[in-house]
Amino acid sequence: MYTILVYDVGQKRVAKMLKLCRKYLNWIQNSVFEGEITEVKLRELILKAREFIDDETDSIIIFKSRDERWLEKQIVGNEKNRLTTII
Amino acid sequence: MYTILVYDVGQKRVAKMLKLCRKYLNWIQNSVFEGEITEVKLRELILKAREFIDDETDSIIIFKSRDERWLEKQIVGNEKNRLTTII
Repeated sequence: MYTILVYDVGQKRVAKMLKLCRKYLNWIQNSVFEGEITEVKLRELILKAREFIDDETDSIIIFKSRDERWLEKQIVGNEKNRLTTII
Repeated sequence: MYTILVYDVGQKRVAKMLKLCRKYLNWIQNSVFEGEITEVKLRELILKAREFIDDETDSIIIFKSRDERWLEKQIVGNEKNRLTTII
């Protein structure tokens, strides 16, 4: 399952959220991740995030597509993850 | 065409980018927009953004899907655009 995850969490929780998402998905921009993930693994990610996010202020939006080909991606400007994909 | 747009631009250009995107799409979180848009209108948005973004540092990522039903959306935490959709 191809997934795009965007989060908006309080400054204090950004590092934790970033670290968590990096374990499951690929970072593509600021607070945006994408990648192939199973339903089970995604549920695991969400459960772990729920442990520390603040439901009143933080939010995570997840877009799921059964097939990556159903989504076309276009990048304008600087492709930020160019280096991280090499490392 | 259903579109998700995420941007990461320098602080000085955030307000301009936000204003531009609001004209074409619906704000859903922080620097994330979504909505139905035609190819022509999307090209117009990108052209206008190119006028002020810095190609070296800024980036805009656009995900396009021919059909919104091909994407499932899940929100964890606070649904930030609840109020803006009412206004």
